[in-house]
Amino acid sequence: MTQPKLKAAILVVSDTAARDPSTDRAGPVLAEAFAAEAEKWDKPVLKIVPDEKVHIQRQICQWADSEDEFMNLIVTSGGTGFAVRDDTPEAVSPLIHRHAPGLVHGMLAASLEVTAWSPKGAKENLEAVIKLLPHACIQAAGADSRAVHAGGVQKLEQEAGVSGRGHEHSNHHHALPIHGGSHDHSHSHEHSHKHGCPQPHTSNDPSAGASRRHRASPYPMISVDEALKLIYEHTPEPEVVEMPVDPSLVGLVIAEDVYAGEAVPAYRASIVDGYAVIAPKSATEPSTQGQFPVASVSHAQAVSMPPHLESGSIARITTGAPLPPNANAVVMVEDTILISSTPDDEEAVVEILTGDVKPGENVREPGSDVALGFKILQRGQLITAVGGEIGLLTSTGTRTVKVFRKPRVGVMSTGDELTEHTSAETLTGGQIRDSNRPSLISCLTAWGFPTSDLGIARDTSNDLEHRLRNALRDGVDIIITTGGVSMGELDLLKPTIERKMGGTIHFGRVAMKPGKPTTFASIPFKPSGSNPSGQSERQTRLMFSLPGNPASALVTLNLFVLPALHKFMGMSSPSASPAQNADLGLPLVHATLTHSIRGDLKRMEYHRAIISSRDGRLFATSTGTSGAGQRSSRVGSLAGANALLILETGRQNGFKEGEVVKALLMGQIVGDRSG
Amino acid sequence: MTQPKLKAAILVVSDTAARDPSTDRAGPVLAEAFAAEAEKWDKPVLKIVPDEKVHIQRQICQWADSEDEFMNLIVTSGGTGFAVRDDTPEAVSPLIHRHAPGLVHGMLAASLEVTAWSPKGAKENLEAVIKLLPHACIQAAGADSRAVHAGGVQKLEQEAGVSGRGHEHSNHHHALPIHGGSHDHSHSHEHSHKHGCPQPHTSNDPSAGASRRHRASPYPMISVDEALKLIYEHTPEPEVVEMPVDPSLVGLVIAEDVYAGEAVPAYRASIVDGYAVIAPKSATEPSTQGQFPVASVSHAQAVSMPPHLESGSIARITTGAPLPPNANAVVMVEDTILISSTPDDEEAVVEILTGDVKPGENVREPGSDVALGFKILQRGQLITAVGGEIGLLTSTGTRTVKVFRKPRVGVMSTGDELTEHTSAETLTGGQIRDSNRPSLISCLTAWGFPTSDLGIARDTSNDLEHRLRNALRDGVDIIITTGGVSMGELDLLKPTIERKMGGTIHFGRVAMKPGKPTTFASIPFKPSGSNPSGQSERQTRLMFSLPGNPASALVTLNLFVLPALHKFMGMSSPSASPAQNADLGLPLVHATLTHSIRGDLKRMEYHRAIISSRDGRLFATSTGTSGAGQRSSRVGSLAGANALLILETGRQNGFKEGEVVKALLMGQIVGDRSG
Repeated sequence: MTQPKLKAAILVVSDTAARDPSTDRAGPVLAEAFAAEAEKWDKPVLKIVPDEKVHIQRQICQWADSEDEFMNLIVTSGGTGFAVRDDTPEAVSPLIHRHAPGLVHGMLAASLEVTAWSPKGAKENLEAVIKLLPHACIQAAGADSRAVHAGGVQKLEQEAGVSGRGHEHSNHHHALPIHGGSHDHSHSHEHSHKHGCPQPHTSNDPSAGASRRHRASPYPMISVDEALKLIYEHTPEPEVVEMPVDPSLVGLVIAEDVYAGEAVPAYRASIVDGYAVIAPKSATEPSTQGQFPVASVSHAQAVSMPPHLESGSIARITTGAPLPPNANAVVMVEDTILISSTPDDEEAVVEILTGDVKPGENVREPGSDVALGFKILQRGQLITAVGGEIGLLTSTGTRTVKVFRKPRVGVMSTGDELTEHTSAETLTGGQIRDSNRPSLISCLTAWGFPTSDLGIARDTSNDLEHRLRNALRDGVDIIITTGGVSMGELDLLKPTIERKMGGTIHFGRVAMKPGKPTTFASIPFKPSGSNPSGQSERQTRLMFSLPGNPASALVTLNLFVLPALHKFMGMSSPSASPAQNADLGLPLVHATLTHSIRGDLKRMEYHRAIISSRDGRLFATSTGTSGAGQRSSRVGSLAGANALLILETGRQNGFKEGEVVKALLMGQIVGDRSG
Repeated sequence: MTQPKLKAAILVVSDTAARDPSTDRAGPVLAEAFAAEAEKWDKPVLKIVPDEKVHIQRQICQWADSEDEFMNLIVTSGGTGFAVRDDTPEAVSPLIHRHAPGLVHGMLAASLEVTAWSPKGAKENLEAVIKLLPHACIQAAGADSRAVHAGGVQKLEQEAGVSGRGHEHSNHHHALPIHGGSHDHSHSHEHSHKHGCPQPHTSNDPSAGASRRHRASPYPMISVDEALKLIYEHTPEPEVVEMPVDPSLVGLVIAEDVYAGEAVPAYRASIVDGYAVIAPKSATEPSTQGQFPVASVSHAQAVSMPPHLESGSIARITTGAPLPPNANAVVMVEDTILISSTPDDEEAVVEILTGDVKPGENVREPGSDVALGFKILQRGQLITAVGGEIGLLTSTGTRTVKVFRKPRVGVMSTGDELTEHTSAETLTGGQIRDSNRPSLISCLTAWGFPTSDLGIARDTSNDLEHRLRNALRDGVDIIITTGGVSMGELDLLKPTIERKMGGTIHFGRVAMKPGKPTTFASIPFKPSGSNPSGQSERQTRLMFSLPGNPASALVTLNLFVLPALHKFMGMSSPSASPAQNADLGLPLVHATLTHSIRGDLKRMEYHRAIISSRDGRLFATSTGTSGAGQRSSRVGSLAGANALLILETGRQNGFKEGEVVKALLMGQIVGDRSG
């Protein structure tokens, strides 16, 4: 089947050439490259625009979007240097939906091998990949399914002898910047007319004017349950690591069943202080009652075994000490009388008052606390601060254990208006203190997650991208940002995630109060360098962009980030279904309201409250219902709070005192006031 | 009133002199010193014993205890050098109830000034303090009340121009080691016959033979409530420290009310995305409905204030952004339509659909979240991990805050039988793994207390004393030991506390299961060096000696140590009564038993259990009731446990399923299984 010829456009970006097209040399040179492949390509369209972002973008969008002027391929040349007005990359970058770094690499390598930095460089640059482009353009124009498309790009990259990073999404804008002459670099862009421009991503195009931005959120409003399901699906499976058994294990989850390597106790031990005896196994054997010589002493502190006990004698023994080999019971000291002592004040003769001592009495048999080989901990079990799990591991001589790694979390605030709370400067204009970063870090640290402070990102896409990339490079598994996700805010974050980091936004709006603009994304990341451990490196990092209002940020941290942290660290039973896991996130309880609460008609409300216990029942009291009480900006609504009440929608008459509501526990419940 | 003459004894310790009394020079020389004070002293009794601990101790006890041979003062000479058989200090030391280091200092100073290291040294040594001794001996023989006695010793020391450390207890054995000749050092001891020897302290005398030790605990069995009251009384008041506001504050208690230094918000802020308008204050002013030019944009990210809004125009505004100075309300973007744009795609004209916008609508007034000067946190309030308190502090620009210092806790295990759990060696004889230290440290660390690992003390009084003194010197406020307190164990700990550290044992036995031998003491400690902060240094350190059985150790850590840690760190409301505070320690709840439990008839049982919530009620399920389930050696009883059920005594028929019992929460309750 013969394909129709492909359409290519050459966009020369140059103030000089725009004034006098005869000075342009890049256009004709690039056209030669297409002429050499004339069986595949129509004669390219040539346009010259000045070094103005808006002109560059408009021309590209026209070629990409319109039915009449649609182009399979756009090659740009010029404006990629370091002069003030060189801003072709800045103009093109936000329009690109999907990068093909492998092809870029191929172009760069070819360009450096041949005539670099000359006007002909643009042509050589293009020639390095032009044989691969038809296939890519056909796919981009026609491919709808992710599988076909992703396969296509990877195949292309393989054909170019290069490899790029993984591709996660299905849209169709690829970018291949081309190096050409020193002031005349070239870019190549392919577009599909199936996707609108300048909104190839759902996020706003930061370079477009305010009137071109969404007036209503382009993200569908999803339910909290749907959001949790998406989070669960995109959170990677936990990684197993081996760690020494010590107190740093607390808060980790066991990754592999643990069996006792030693029995506890390892020997027959006395449960009480007293005298080891040979208790009669039948009525014909001698009674334990009477006066006996004290033959030996077995202290708990004894490292060696006590000597064999002769019939008719007894041995003093202390709690936990090993029994003499042939003793079979212990008589408590309270049931004895000291009859006589040696000149050295050691016990000579002791009378045992009780005659019905039975074999095994007051004796802990070997392995009766923990049998050798017994499964002491199982996969999925949390090592708690209560100490029982550490106690089991250490008492059986377990030296290392396999656990699931905890994710490293990075916390970043965004916004030019933010000032450090430690700054001595007086606030001016719309400045506010950055309270989210310290409060989120406090919470995450207290939960036991290693946390990185990513600082305050200023409102430029570059600063955001720079900080995000640094965080990923530094090993942050989960990035949390606050601010910059509300509808009307500058909202550089979503475009940066999608357009610069190659990330995928899974949701951008949730039907809840507070926390509506909560955004969740995954970002592909391939760590550089070799991997000596041989373990598969994670290919995906998670990003939670939480609202900037302090109460919203803390509520959504608890509600959405915690379940991801929990899945990441292996907190789910082995039999858990692949769907949302009830064991993840905050524990859910029911509690009786101590007063009426209005609730919200349209959005599920997560109402800050204090849960206390009284006479075996749980009660819920709001941290404030009047005035600014639960306002999403009011972080005071969380002071003293230990729970979020889940108030369902549609209650015209609100929630009444005495009614039982659901609640998620953020902290320990308040105990009964009196014993 | 004329006092009867005092009785003094001179005990010469020398193998040579014991064989041939004529070789003794120290006895006659010391007698001269008494002769010079003959109006106060009878002619002293002289005895010579060989360098044998048992002989030294027997003679001293005879003089101290017997009615017939009672002596007010005993002076020893000899056996204090470094020869193998020189063990007078070791023999005398355990018999001493109360040290008088000030007198010792006076003696040493005098001895060095005159004829040091000669046989006459012993006499000069004695002469340095002999004028003070009658007063001390009269007091020791007759004083019963703590006040008289303590005053007496301090007065004595003042008279000697020296000062000792504080005295905590009321018993009557003082020690004044005297330096004399190089092989002929002297000791002076005063005794009261009102206190038995060799048990001047309640604790066992480690140097006495086994038959002289207690066969039943000498400590009264007290109730858990009495124990908690003693702990509360002896735990020092919290210390105030100033700390920077950052995430490390989590878990600390506010020591001084905190007032907002800045209002939140600091300006009039929009609650929504939309348009700032001038809403009519009366019907005569223009409606907000209609088409308006968009005069300016106010982003939340704006650092400066937006310009003044002209009547008849509106300003685009984002959530959290400052309102133009004369705007008074915000219309949500959803209630508007974009009518026209500028050539640069900025908004030109927007139509507002609603006419009934009221002044103040969608506006956060300055200080409406937190008013300037508002008390944001109060003394006694805990800074929780939920983040609300950190959020309040940071959002109001608070840079430092006064909190109560957390105590540093040291954890030590005791016993020759203990082996590190990390040791690769196979256990032999009565060896067991040390699981208490790692599990207690895990628990304390998770509670947020700075914790020092004091290692395993071997069963010598010297090793114990050495480790305890090092811990105190290193700034440990509270020492926790495990093991060595059970009746029959070597029990070097209590004698070391009393006889070497000058400590006071407040209780040594509690009516509970597990944990009966739990011991609580305070140890006087005077830090050396200057104190630049000017704060009063603590004079008392606390010591908890917990039973060695792993479950007992963890249960008593929760039950007894935690309330002391809480009081130390200021966790009590300002109005709390000086008696035991209900806010301290684990929260108490009530829960319904899901099955029957037998309970203990005689001792209050702290039964390890899991508390879970269902439909607003709490339920309790044991971690194991059969076999070794709750045995105090079975640390597995704590694995997965989050509570201790308090099972009262005397229940012949046990506790029935469905019955409500009290429980102390060690961890987060388990939530309802389904939503």
